Amino acid sequence: MSDHLLALDAGGTSTRAVVLDADGTCRGCGRAGPGNPTSAGTATALASLAGAARDALAQAGLGTADVGGVVVALAGGEGPLPVAELGAAVGYTGPAARLRRVGDLLAMYSSGTAEAAGAGLVSGTGSVAGRIADGDLLRVVGGSGWLLGDAGSGYWTGLHVVRAVVAHLDGSGPPTALTAAVLAAEGVVPGEEARYGRPEHLHRLLDALYARPPLLLSRFAPAAFAAAAGPDPDPVAAGLVEQAGDAVAALLRALRLEPGTTLVAGGSTWRRGLTGAGVPRSAALTEALTGLRLRAADDGLLGAAVLALRLDGPVPETTYERVRSTLAALRAA
Amino acid sequence: MSDHLLALDAGGTSTRAVVLDADGTCRGCGRAGPGNPTSAGTATALASLAGAARDALAQAGLGTADVGGVVVALAGGEGPLPVAELGAAVGYTGPAARLRRVGDLLAMYSSGTAEAAGAGLVSGTGSVAGRIADGDLLRVVGGSGWLLGDAGSGYWTGLHVVRAVVAHLDGSGPPTALTAAVLAAEGVVPGEEARYGRPEHLHRLLDALYARPPLLLSRFAPAAFAAAAGPDPDPVAAGLVEQAGDAVAALLRALRLEPGTTLVAGGSTWRRGLTGAGVPRSAALTEALTGLRLRAADDGLLGAAVLALRLDGPVPETTYERVRSTLAALRAA
Repeated sequence: MSDHLLALDAGGTSTRAVVLDADGTCRGCGRAGPGNPTSAGTATALASLAGAARDALAQAGLGTADVGGVVVALAGGEGPLPVAELGAAVGYTGPAARLRRVGDLLAMYSSGTAEAAGAGLVSGTGSVAGRIADGDLLRVVGGSGWLLGDAGSGYWTGLHVVRAVVAHLDGSGPPTALTAAVLAAEGVVPGEEARYGRPEHLHRLLDALYARPPLLLSRFAPAAFAAAAGPDPDPVAAGLVEQAGDAVAALLRALRLEPGTTLVAGGSTWRRGLTGAGVPRSAALTEALTGLRLRAADDGLLGAAVLALRLDGPVPETTYERVRSTLAALRAA
Repeated sequence: MSDHLLALDAGGTSTRAVVLDADGTCRGCGRAGPGNPTSAGTATALASLAGAARDALAQAGLGTADVGGVVVALAGGEGPLPVAELGAAVGYTGPAARLRRVGDLLAMYSSGTAEAAGAGLVSGTGSVAGRIADGDLLRVVGGSGWLLGDAGSGYWTGLHVVRAVVAHLDGSGPPTALTAAVLAAEGVVPGEEARYGRPEHLHRLLDALYARPPLLLSRFAPAAFAAAAGPDPDPVAAGLVEQAGDAVAALLRALRLEPGTTLVAGGSTWRRGLTGAGVPRSAALTEALTGLRLRAADDGLLGAAVLALRLDGPVPETTYERVRSTLAALRAA
């Protein structure tokens, strides 16, 4: 009876699991705390995987002996733990060939299509793109993290928002509507005072911004997309949004995709920013997307479920649609 | 007899002091450990100031009672300590009006000229420019630190070197000669292995680069200037060097200097990179410098000594030259 599959998506804030039949019908869902061994620690991550799997099996009325294959999606696809330990945490004791750990880019891709070949693009806090062949990652561009290579991401956009604000306040850059938004968000009140050749509120803004981890600068990305939209866009914000789109277009161009290739794209910066309603789109991005079959990424759990089905071979489009609709129904219940 | 002056330059790695006569003749020098209260802690910084001052007075055959004015140059001009505590550390008990703390930009400016008005520019690990009027900082642009505003600095250049290398290695950017230099410097050997869609040596390079503080990326700036120089420059390196020059030119333009203004410029990136021998200079930088009277910055200790003399009013050029030559002689001894 071990013909059920278990799929998990272990993230920095939560871990989710789903149990499905071999025909793609999702039977039970579970959720637990942080599941990324690198950020949460291995003990916490293993406990979260175990908890999410237990809940999903309980909802499905199944036990660990019913599970004949497991896929775990993890940021970057790596971590300090051997994949066997991830399997043991969720009670899987079957053959190693049916236990797979995959990266978030492949999981996001598989959430948007059942095709075994195509391309994926994620722009959220970070940005990454890759080509998929035979159901696996063939080549990755970008995704090198906040410092070294997440061009066009939410972090990149937020960083350049605050850089533009600092340049406005010290006079090395043009005025921008972003300044009022950032000062207000940081609780800094502008005034006439000055110290060491700078406005006092610039000193206070710098102190506030340096007091938090750089990656959190992604919180300012939505301000750029908002200020670039509408009938009277802020030129500085519009310029940043165009540069972000250009950077993501460069990732796509680097993949050298054939016309007709399926591109699954997602992430909060992609959805609400680069291709958001009312936000002007970079010409380079429009051109890079021309000729591709664009599909929206759903989420990593759906992708992990599709990849679990792929342990048994190609997944037909009808099966993909069944996984998607039954998973959505479970979540809505 | 309290007509001597004490000048100190408190830096992150060392603290230096000089005692001088009212006519600008330097009489004694001293040196001690880290003197920046923010990075070294207040106890260490105060001990370094005290030690450097004691040595300088001893060499001059003078005591603290002979000191009628003190100037302390400190990075940014700020710190957790009231200026009176800095004075007490070096044994100064005179009037508060003759005890002054200044920032490194003003000290660097004053190391290159005795004029009370002009402009200063430093591009070292960071970059900053400012206008000086009445012997004080009037306005500062740039200098907002590695994350938020050191365009054209050694950090900025080094960061963009490694970003270009990462882009070369993942295929999102053009090939560059910088790649071999950076891989060698990090001890990463390129090979054919791949993992998660990337070359194994790219994984190892990213691990090595993220393992150290971002600011240390300034170590790669010299590689860009070297690769941009000579008869067969690397196009990627040449592009970065041009962008760095453009960024520094933008700082200068923001100061809106009148033709004929004295500009004191210095810092390792300025000397060996942006205006280094054989390094192609950005056209924007050449234009920004046109019409200015360019002088080379010396060091912060000389600047602090000049500012100490200014406690008694304007400093003639002959006095400036006397400070410079007698300080150089003391150091050479």
